[in-house]
Amino acid sequence: MTGTTAPTSARISVGGKSPLTGGIKEANAGTSWAADIASMRIKALVVEGMPEKKGEYWGILIHWDSTAAQPKLEWFNANEFTGQNLYEVYPKVYEKFADRRVSICGTGMAGEHGYGNSGVVFNDMSKRPSRYAGRGGLGAVMASKGLKFIVLDDRGAPGVEIVDKPLFEVGRKKMIEALRSHAITKPKGALNSFGTAVLINILNEAGGLPTRNFSSGRFEGAAKIAGEAIFEGNKARLGEELYNHPCSPGCIIQCSNTWHKADKTEHTSCIEYESDWALGANCGIDDLDIIAELNQLCNGYGLDTIETGVTIGVAMEAGVIPFGDGKGSIELVHKIGKGEPIGRILGSGTGSAGKVLGVTRVPAVKGQGMPAYEPRAVKGIGITYATTTMGADHTAGYTICPEILGVSGKQDPLSPEGKAALSRAFQATTAFIDSSGHCLFIAFAILDIASGFEGMIEEANGVLGTSWTADDIVKYGADVLKVERKFNEAAGISKEADRIPEFMHIEPLPPHNNIFDVPDSALDSVFGEL
Amino acid sequence: MTGTTAPTSARISVGGKSPLTGGIKEANAGTSWAADIASMRIKALVVEGMPEKKGEYWGILIHWDSTAAQPKLEWFNANEFTGQNLYEVYPKVYEKFADRRVSICGTGMAGEHGYGNSGVVFNDMSKRPSRYAGRGGLGAVMASKGLKFIVLDDRGAPGVEIVDKPLFEVGRKKMIEALRSHAITKPKGALNSFGTAVLINILNEAGGLPTRNFSSGRFEGAAKIAGEAIFEGNKARLGEELYNHPCSPGCIIQCSNTWHKADKTEHTSCIEYESDWALGANCGIDDLDIIAELNQLCNGYGLDTIETGVTIGVAMEAGVIPFGDGKGSIELVHKIGKGEPIGRILGSGTGSAGKVLGVTRVPAVKGQGMPAYEPRAVKGIGITYATTTMGADHTAGYTICPEILGVSGKQDPLSPEGKAALSRAFQATTAFIDSSGHCLFIAFAILDIASGFEGMIEEANGVLGTSWTADDIVKYGADVLKVERKFNEAAGISKEADRIPEFMHIEPLPPHNNIFDVPDSALDSVFGEL
Repeated sequence: MTGTTAPTSARISVGGKSPLTGGIKEANAGTSWAADIASMRIKALVVEGMPEKKGEYWGILIHWDSTAAQPKLEWFNANEFTGQNLYEVYPKVYEKFADRRVSICGTGMAGEHGYGNSGVVFNDMSKRPSRYAGRGGLGAVMASKGLKFIVLDDRGAPGVEIVDKPLFEVGRKKMIEALRSHAITKPKGALNSFGTAVLINILNEAGGLPTRNFSSGRFEGAAKIAGEAIFEGNKARLGEELYNHPCSPGCIIQCSNTWHKADKTEHTSCIEYESDWALGANCGIDDLDIIAELNQLCNGYGLDTIETGVTIGVAMEAGVIPFGDGKGSIELVHKIGKGEPIGRILGSGTGSAGKVLGVTRVPAVKGQGMPAYEPRAVKGIGITYATTTMGADHTAGYTICPEILGVSGKQDPLSPEGKAALSRAFQATTAFIDSSGHCLFIAFAILDIASGFEGMIEEANGVLGTSWTADDIVKYGADVLKVERKFNEAAGISKEADRIPEFMHIEPLPPHNNIFDVPDSALDSVFGEL
Repeated sequence: MTGTTAPTSARISVGGKSPLTGGIKEANAGTSWAADIASMRIKALVVEGMPEKKGEYWGILIHWDSTAAQPKLEWFNANEFTGQNLYEVYPKVYEKFADRRVSICGTGMAGEHGYGNSGVVFNDMSKRPSRYAGRGGLGAVMASKGLKFIVLDDRGAPGVEIVDKPLFEVGRKKMIEALRSHAITKPKGALNSFGTAVLINILNEAGGLPTRNFSSGRFEGAAKIAGEAIFEGNKARLGEELYNHPCSPGCIIQCSNTWHKADKTEHTSCIEYESDWALGANCGIDDLDIIAELNQLCNGYGLDTIETGVTIGVAMEAGVIPFGDGKGSIELVHKIGKGEPIGRILGSGTGSAGKVLGVTRVPAVKGQGMPAYEPRAVKGIGITYATTTMGADHTAGYTICPEILGVSGKQDPLSPEGKAALSRAFQATTAFIDSSGHCLFIAFAILDIASGFEGMIEEANGVLGTSWTADDIVKYGADVLKVERKFNEAAGISKEADRIPEFMHIEPLPPHNNIFDVPDSALDSVFGEL
């Protein structure tokens, strides 16, 4: 659906073999770049091989050649753009292509260092280098190929082909209606007002907000860093209410916030829930100005905010700096960006850093740091972390919907009962949604509103000329998972890697004092019964 | 046979789950400690669990209680011995037990840091902390349990029980005769004169001496660091020929050398072939005084010399210091010992360091650095590296015997033909020899001299009262391998981990310009057809 007028569908998917997990990796982002490549009818861009000369960097420009009625690819040397903060680099690249209307994909210094923690960045609607396919080190994969940028100019391109336009329109309208009516996704609703960081207070209340390297499920400073605090903080500094903006064209949820300094100038955009949590609660930091600075540095160096915050938590556990040390955290992120020895340790990702620093309380699966939901307090998401082919990843099967948000029914987050089946169903459906180009946030509306789910399928059938049913969607998703699983098996990742760290089986988590009590047999059943 | 009068049989075996490979680990050493524990009729010492209080270190003293006719175990606090070089610590521990006749097992600062590169050390015959069960991070396993020392005093103990003494004596005499007559193991023979470092010139000649992080199989400085150079260097400095000494009681091969400074004082003991190569040729260093200092620092900090040299080679590849930089290497080993950030990176072992430093030319299998034989120049040993449960380990199946030394026949080292079967046979036989308590160096004599092999079996049957045949020996070894393999599978290590690094399949190795051309199917057949 990417590149069509389907709402909230401008996602780009980046894939490769992860230097963080050693397995398959798919990470996606919302950006105009996604719509632009689709508009040129490019279904996928495959980058293979390595440059003969190490340390040389190149960009590619892909634009529409109207004469030949096809896309044209040109190379440009990108050495001058290396070793710098992306907030310095992006304006220069836009300037270089000032006579064009471009979208820019790139990788930062983290990718150049070859880090397991390095993302692929895409421009947002204000040309910021801020929309990340962040997880799993795909920035390092890109940089290892000497590829610094992929610049697109889709002017003149024919746009996405839609086989059955009337059917597509029927589906699209149902989807718009669902998104506009659901409390989470409607205008001035939860996401549009408070951003994804609206989840801080909700998870804190549920006792599932990982705090100080996953040593508690509740953070005493949660209210100070919550989405509501971002909204109120902006209001106080700007003198007026500020609602959020879209990350990409055609999004009607519009959940991207901007944090402002006391002098009313922009500090960073966007502080997502995961970033807010990772750089905040997980490090014992309750100051939004510190979190904003850390967020901006991650974007600038090309780092994944989740992996960065989780590895800093591990460094704090190891005594490198104390929990709550905002200034020390900022210094550490600079050291990561600059490739200093302690920075390389942290830049290599959570599992690796835990090993090198000699820490056993390491919240990671397959080496990848855990996101902002505690497995001991929310059992279903723990099963997703353990079993997804991606390493610890909440987006692979977001059981938070029924376990915490009451979306698609309500299930007790502390109970392990039935959660393997729940995770399996969410993983399969998610694989379809990701493949469709929609943002995962349509899930709230399509799970609660039947016509929204119909709309998604009709959109897909309209674009592709297929006649898929709801059952086909789940089967499609399951097939995706099976292919991913085969990749991992061939890469030497066996089911023994589908486990939650030992400490979560032993240490009870305050405030509920639960351990992760899902048996290995239940974890194995997720793929065993797929 | 450990603790008996069987020649060259005072080996101790240390086992655990390796923090370096994530799999099973067996490392062994020659030391009086081995004979002493056997003399108290202790077959194995199992250490389980963790101390409640982190950072506390303890020692245990095991001595023979003549009244109760059994060993007695006492604890002592060892906090005062932590954070120091073992060459400072060992004399203090001997002093503490001055009224006893003790052997000491310990772990150094490397173990305290939790490094994947950390050994378990045992005293040699001159009370030096120099005989290491070095590989795979067993020092960290020991230290993680708060265990700093295991001190033995076997006075009054009854000694090893021998079921059939006449048979044992028959076997023992055959073994002595074989060892005393073989060119490699006889008095003033290759090992007694030049130590294991006699292999430097031999492997260099064969083009299989890994040089500068496995970028060549021949080192222009080989002759300057060879076993012959150690012998001649000592002779020049001391004014007389110095033959080698035994590492443990009852060894008639006596291959341990001592390197002396220009002022005739001792510098280090012993410079093994592997240490000489790892800290020398592999780092492009051709100065025995530098190698001796590096060797002594490794022993003092509790590091495995192989893993240290191979990770420094990787650091040189990454540009941390240049190849050949002896002073820089000494500084790096101090940083490893002291736990500085770059030291932690290197202390975590070859595979981990390669990842953190962003290097792709990483000579490791299952994370463990490769020893001193190039898989591209000696195919059989490459198969052993790839397939042994231990990670890259030459001692697990020393096909060098027929491939390089002409022991047990002669096979072309460059040919992959039949080498999977060869490695399998050596791995199984080795598992028996290791289990018997003999030093692996009896292999030269028992493979070439039939009565020596008979002698080994008769010794075993004499001690145990068994009636094993040669076939039983191989079956015993194969059973050991199968158990180890099951351990690794349960730990999530699949056959996809039984591989040689990619670069060795791509980059031809000078001077023969061979790649590692053993197909995966041959690698899989080693255990597949066991």
